[in-house]
Amino acid sequence: MAPLTDFYQLTMAYGHWRAGRHRLPAAAELFFRRGPFRGAFALGAGLAEGLRCLRAFRFSAADVAYLRSVLPSTTEDAFFDYLATLDASEVTVSAVPEGSVVFARVPFLQVKGPLLVVQLLETMLLCLVNYASLVATNAARFRLLAGPDMKLMEIGLRRAQGPDGALSASKYSYIGGFDCTSNVLAGKLYGIPVRGTIAHSFIMSFTSLEEVQPRELLPLAGGEPVDLPALAKSLLQWVCELLQTPPEKTNRGELAAFVSYAISFPHDFQGLLDTYCVRRSGLPNFCAVALALHQLGYRAIGVRLDSGDLAQQSKEIRRVLRACGAHFQVPWFETIPIAVSNDISEQSLEEFSREGSEIDMIGVGTNLVTCPLQPSLGCVYKLVEVNGSPCMKLTEDEEKMTIPGIKTIYRLYDAAGHPFMDLMALEEEPSPSAGQELVIRVLGRLGETSKVVPTTVEPLHRTYFRDGQVCEPLPSLPEVRSHAQVSLSLLSPAHRRLHEPQPYPVAMTERLHNLLTELRQATQ
Amino acid sequence: MAPLTDFYQLTMAYGHWRAGRHRLPAAAELFFRRGPFRGAFALGAGLAEGLRCLRAFRFSAADVAYLRSVLPSTTEDAFFDYLATLDASEVTVSAVPEGSVVFARVPFLQVKGPLLVVQLLETMLLCLVNYASLVATNAARFRLLAGPDMKLMEIGLRRAQGPDGALSASKYSYIGGFDCTSNVLAGKLYGIPVRGTIAHSFIMSFTSLEEVQPRELLPLAGGEPVDLPALAKSLLQWVCELLQTPPEKTNRGELAAFVSYAISFPHDFQGLLDTYCVRRSGLPNFCAVALALHQLGYRAIGVRLDSGDLAQQSKEIRRVLRACGAHFQVPWFETIPIAVSNDISEQSLEEFSREGSEIDMIGVGTNLVTCPLQPSLGCVYKLVEVNGSPCMKLTEDEEKMTIPGIKTIYRLYDAAGHPFMDLMALEEEPSPSAGQELVIRVLGRLGETSKVVPTTVEPLHRTYFRDGQVCEPLPSLPEVRSHAQVSLSLLSPAHRRLHEPQPYPVAMTERLHNLLTELRQATQ
Repeated sequence: MAPLTDFYQLTMAYGHWRAGRHRLPAAAELFFRRGPFRGAFALGAGLAEGLRCLRAFRFSAADVAYLRSVLPSTTEDAFFDYLATLDASEVTVSAVPEGSVVFARVPFLQVKGPLLVVQLLETMLLCLVNYASLVATNAARFRLLAGPDMKLMEIGLRRAQGPDGALSASKYSYIGGFDCTSNVLAGKLYGIPVRGTIAHSFIMSFTSLEEVQPRELLPLAGGEPVDLPALAKSLLQWVCELLQTPPEKTNRGELAAFVSYAISFPHDFQGLLDTYCVRRSGLPNFCAVALALHQLGYRAIGVRLDSGDLAQQSKEIRRVLRACGAHFQVPWFETIPIAVSNDISEQSLEEFSREGSEIDMIGVGTNLVTCPLQPSLGCVYKLVEVNGSPCMKLTEDEEKMTIPGIKTIYRLYDAAGHPFMDLMALEEEPSPSAGQELVIRVLGRLGETSKVVPTTVEPLHRTYFRDGQVCEPLPSLPEVRSHAQVSLSLLSPAHRRLHEPQPYPVAMTERLHNLLTELRQATQ
Repeated sequence: MAPLTDFYQLTMAYGHWRAGRHRLPAAAELFFRRGPFRGAFALGAGLAEGLRCLRAFRFSAADVAYLRSVLPSTTEDAFFDYLATLDASEVTVSAVPEGSVVFARVPFLQVKGPLLVVQLLETMLLCLVNYASLVATNAARFRLLAGPDMKLMEIGLRRAQGPDGALSASKYSYIGGFDCTSNVLAGKLYGIPVRGTIAHSFIMSFTSLEEVQPRELLPLAGGEPVDLPALAKSLLQWVCELLQTPPEKTNRGELAAFVSYAISFPHDFQGLLDTYCVRRSGLPNFCAVALALHQLGYRAIGVRLDSGDLAQQSKEIRRVLRACGAHFQVPWFETIPIAVSNDISEQSLEEFSREGSEIDMIGVGTNLVTCPLQPSLGCVYKLVEVNGSPCMKLTEDEEKMTIPGIKTIYRLYDAAGHPFMDLMALEEEPSPSAGQELVIRVLGRLGETSKVVPTTVEPLHRTYFRDGQVCEPLPSLPEVRSHAQVSLSLLSPAHRRLHEPQPYPVAMTERLHNLLTELRQATQ
């Protein structure tokens, strides 16, 4: 993975190496400057993949040969020999546990090690963490809007940045709170539940009931096989009468497709209702097939809509399902899950709940995986110390100023159990104590001190990588997913809300502030 | 690659297989419904990767075992045995050559083969073509705005959807007209030129000239080694005097970093000017080091800006470089290339040319690779024929209507050599002839016929895949890149312009229109 980097990292590496500075001890921090999607929080993600790449961090002979061909011809041979020996065994990485809530300007990954390697890792770590955290956060927002009971399914494979972009989308959407994915490869590689039934193309590939083969289905409880097309066709008459819709307006290809699918998957029949007309064709055809299945002891698993006014249609569908259930005395009919898809966004979810929709499951593709509200998280990776000297970049813009020195990060909790502030301290400072008053400076108003008394103090980071090895057990994907939901649930509603949240305060200790002031004076 | 698909493709595959329909001959077409970024055109891309995946299309034993674990338990064993034998050897793919200009609603990839396989390929092909075409088109727009002489560099590795998203971005940006990338792995894998020099972190890691090691540089023409820090320091006095800026405002760490880099890469020194103050520090320090290099016979390769008003600063920098060049009698100074980066968008490029900037090279990251103006192309893949019967999806929305039947696509050119219309004909129709009047129906106003006389007629598609093999030589990446530029250059300015372009007409023959009308009547 070592060549997964920007070329300037290698020219700089040569610069450091040639100046004999490549082994100076250095430290860097990874953070973002503003909460994504105008929210107060993000979910930190990408750690496990980052650690995997750290373990594999090496330039192969082919990599070195390639670098030799592109670096200026004046580059000394000994540098390439050095590159060939390089690995991450002298690097130490600490980070917040994957899936934790993280806030703007608070480092959520720290790297210490020889300057050259610390610098070389920048691009790779940013590449792995940026999108992972962005899409996990996006997924978490969908989950917060949808509530805990809605089934959320990721369906963005065809809209992501290629196969690996799509796999990342599946994995980190799951971490962020989605339930399942359409992506078979993501299911296979990561164990994420996969779902899916039929598309319009399946329905359109049928034109008449004659095409249904085989035609018979065995009742669940045993007995003689039943001709399902014939049964469905006869039930369709009754359904159309009940729904007061003309039977000739139902599409026969659609009925054939439904029957054929139901015979293939009698326990898993879902009707896609909108290939033709939902009300006059899709819904009566579905009810007919579902009733036929019922007579044989099976239950349909749901309906799906992929166009039109989804909230309104879901209510009409629920009414029809209730009416059918009552009329034909099939109690489970009224609770048949209604799934929807078609360019679902945060706004769609807000509309669904405003309109009191009857939707039970939502598929989100483009607006989940491409994060159109903010397609990049913009994490940065900044050197904070080289050879024992803290570094900082001074700028007019306080937001862009880096905060020097190697830090320990604490999350402070109030009596209600909500985190109310993240606090950066110098590594050598003693840990703040729960219940003790702390004098701190809040970013954005560094000119004044404030006092806070945390009920609980949590050191945010753990050391995950040392001596070339992952040194902390990594949780499974479902564990990361649960951790993310717990982390989100601890947030106070004011910080968790998606629109105009209360900004989450980030502070530094007086000692860190003193260092900042000194360095600022020294540089000016 | 076979599991790179949506789960519903497999449930549908089982449905077709169980109904004995899996080997019915079928055909599908891939197209987008609207030009991306509100433009009239896109570049079709992703073909070579699609073909590679077709060749490798197979379910491994592990894939099949996984599918067995997730498909309903009622799925017959024989289906899994069948999946294990499946490949794309009976599939035929035709497409426009990679990098060609393509238009909304015109199929640019066609797949024929057994229904089950044609359906299974949908998601994979969309995943590979959608983002490839989108980012190639985005890159082409940047190229059109920048003009042919501007150097364009892709720097989006850290903002893409993970490593593979970034590699796709590099490859297809290059096809779209970018010159180089920062992505080392893309350079190694695809042979794309890589570029890069230094980042702010390199400059910030120095604090004084004492840190520069080694200090000496040999003159290009030979002779005694020269103490470069000392020479640069003395030249800095003169530069500051000329620029009327106080020497004590120049940052010594920055000067040290420049000198150190220049010693490492005397032929490739570029100054990153905005770590501290461009005017008072970055620029004088750069001029001092570049003049020192000049005394030893070397030329600096450029400066780079990464913040602030780039167009205005470029003009000020050019004035200073001219003044320095004249004063110190170094003629090449005034043509030192000025490179810029920092959230560059189409709008930035429009501003640069409006303000008459002096910029020679532009690095584009986030706004290139994430395509924020439209983060997904939205290609679709539609069955157009099954078992010899044309299929169509009727909808109220004419734009969403699919056009039935297997087609041949022609591009019609006018006397000036511009394409003026794409024409869809049924496969069995004779080819239209150059210079002959054609009676056609234009999409969007199908109710009336029109007549056109093309000066040239070009069949758009070639057959690329047949009998399990790629059957047409695939061009190299630079060849695809050239083809894209030629294809773009043929467009009339009205279709090529980025804002409010003239819509490009797409038409069908009378025979295809007759088929459409028949099917529409039959279905209603």
